[in-house]
Amino acid sequence: MKDKFYAYLQNLQDTITTSLEAVDTKAKFKEDLWKRPEGGGGRTRVIEKGAVFEKGGVNTSSVYGKLPDTMQQYFGVEDADFYACGLSLVLHPKSPMLPTVHANWRYFEMYNSQGHLVDSWFGGGQDLTPYYLFEEDAIHFHSVCKTACDKHDLTFYPKFKEKCDNYFWNTHRNEARGIGGLFFDYCKTSEKMTMAHWYDFTTEIGNSFLESYLPIIEKRKAIAYTQAHRNWQEIRRGRYVEFNLVHDKGTLFGLKTNGRIESILMSLPPHVQWTYNHTPKKGSEEAKLLSILKQPKQWVV
Amino acid sequence: MKDKFYAYLQNLQDTITTSLEAVDTKAKFKEDLWKRPEGGGGRTRVIEKGAVFEKGGVNTSSVYGKLPDTMQQYFGVEDADFYACGLSLVLHPKSPMLPTVHANWRYFEMYNSQGHLVDSWFGGGQDLTPYYLFEEDAIHFHSVCKTACDKHDLTFYPKFKEKCDNYFWNTHRNEARGIGGLFFDYCKTSEKMTMAHWYDFTTEIGNSFLESYLPIIEKRKAIAYTQAHRNWQEIRRGRYVEFNLVHDKGTLFGLKTNGRIESILMSLPPHVQWTYNHTPKKGSEEAKLLSILKQPKQWVV
Repeated sequence: MKDKFYAYLQNLQDTITTSLEAVDTKAKFKEDLWKRPEGGGGRTRVIEKGAVFEKGGVNTSSVYGKLPDTMQQYFGVEDADFYACGLSLVLHPKSPMLPTVHANWRYFEMYNSQGHLVDSWFGGGQDLTPYYLFEEDAIHFHSVCKTACDKHDLTFYPKFKEKCDNYFWNTHRNEARGIGGLFFDYCKTSEKMTMAHWYDFTTEIGNSFLESYLPIIEKRKAIAYTQAHRNWQEIRRGRYVEFNLVHDKGTLFGLKTNGRIESILMSLPPHVQWTYNHTPKKGSEEAKLLSILKQPKQWVV
Repeated sequence: MKDKFYAYLQNLQDTITTSLEAVDTKAKFKEDLWKRPEGGGGRTRVIEKGAVFEKGGVNTSSVYGKLPDTMQQYFGVEDADFYACGLSLVLHPKSPMLPTVHANWRYFEMYNSQGHLVDSWFGGGQDLTPYYLFEEDAIHFHSVCKTACDKHDLTFYPKFKEKCDNYFWNTHRNEARGIGGLFFDYCKTSEKMTMAHWYDFTTEIGNSFLESYLPIIEKRKAIAYTQAHRNWQEIRRGRYVEFNLVHDKGTLFGLKTNGRIESILMSLPPHVQWTYNHTPKKGSEEAKLLSILKQPKQWVV
């Protein structure tokens, strides 16, 4: 399973980076291959200063070895080994009219001290962070997520949509990071789902990514914007940084367990502002976004 | 003691903001008075878009009430009340030739369920974060710190300098946030020092702040700089954000206990960049700074 899924992820990485380069027309992804001293490594691909994408990364990794102590405690196990592979992507467009997107699909295996597989699961999701909200884009993004989920189980979309809203919540600001999407984790064998089913589901979601995002980019990329729009985008990007550095479990885990820092922090936006107590005018587009972020919305039913 | 020290801090806040406005010549501090629902409040003063200071805050607060659960656990107490007051300041100059400075002086009291004072202590410090390093400025800053310490105890400077180097260490980058200064905490009654002595010491350090920082600003504020210098400053400011959001105990405590977010996060720089895997040229001024940050240095003996 692990080899099959990692091969899938590497193919998906190729498909995604090729498509994004075609959309951008100007910048190309630069590739860094890296090795993890304790076992495994990754393929980091970063795009910067493009016509459409100001900064983005589409990274795969496949790592294994002794389960770090903090994770042994987290899972309540001792002397365990692990294998993990995943694809993580974050795209920060230049235009404030285009939303930032994040996606991640991953697979985890855990072994006992005799090297026997004792547990395994899939996880992943994708979520959208607009700076100016076009409601039909939010509906499009969620519709693609829902269609992919519904092929497998009608309970998945509402369940994983809610998990996403809960996860990407900036507690200290009392607002959502963006308008959500899907978040699923610990997807294990159950009465209804074998691991082969979860593989089909996770790859279905991965395959739907470009369809969920690229049409929004194509539709909005020519909209003109001002420095004021750009300032708002950079202030909102500050909230993105706050979420990733204060709350995001994956980022903190990476930072505290000697992960590859530059691959982890490629998620941070290129230009960011913090302005004291910035408050948009009542009735403005900026205020409308904030009101949507205060209360997660049902975009599709 | 608490009233005396808070009155001192409010006076010091006036002295510092008046002096900084005089240096800036363009921008003025804006004041926000705020109340904490559970008890107490503060006086936040923020300067933005000045001629010298791009963003800065000089804040006092005096808060009291039930000790938050997370702190009860931290101190291993139950049913405790607390009082805390402090002055916190962070100044982010516009010119990359000028260092960012941070300072904080604080006093804490803890009471048992009968309302009796059971513990109290002083804490504080100040530290400097240059983007381009002028060694004589680092020596000046540390000399002022040492002179103030030496008036009270010759062991203080080396001890509190080392604590500062340890505290402002960006673990995940394996480098210091800046070139250090002083950091002291839990300064309680001992054989050598009464609380009155610690009051004298902490106010001595507070009084030395302007002398430690302003001469550097005056000396370097007219130096010309390019967009390349500015980019480097904004990238390094990213490390400042990483430290404050990932490692700084005070910031995280504030974010997780419903503190006044805008007062806490006034410490974040106004314009910040994250560039993938930025590496300065060998032998450059930027590379020289990095090498100094890898290994804390003795600036004065």
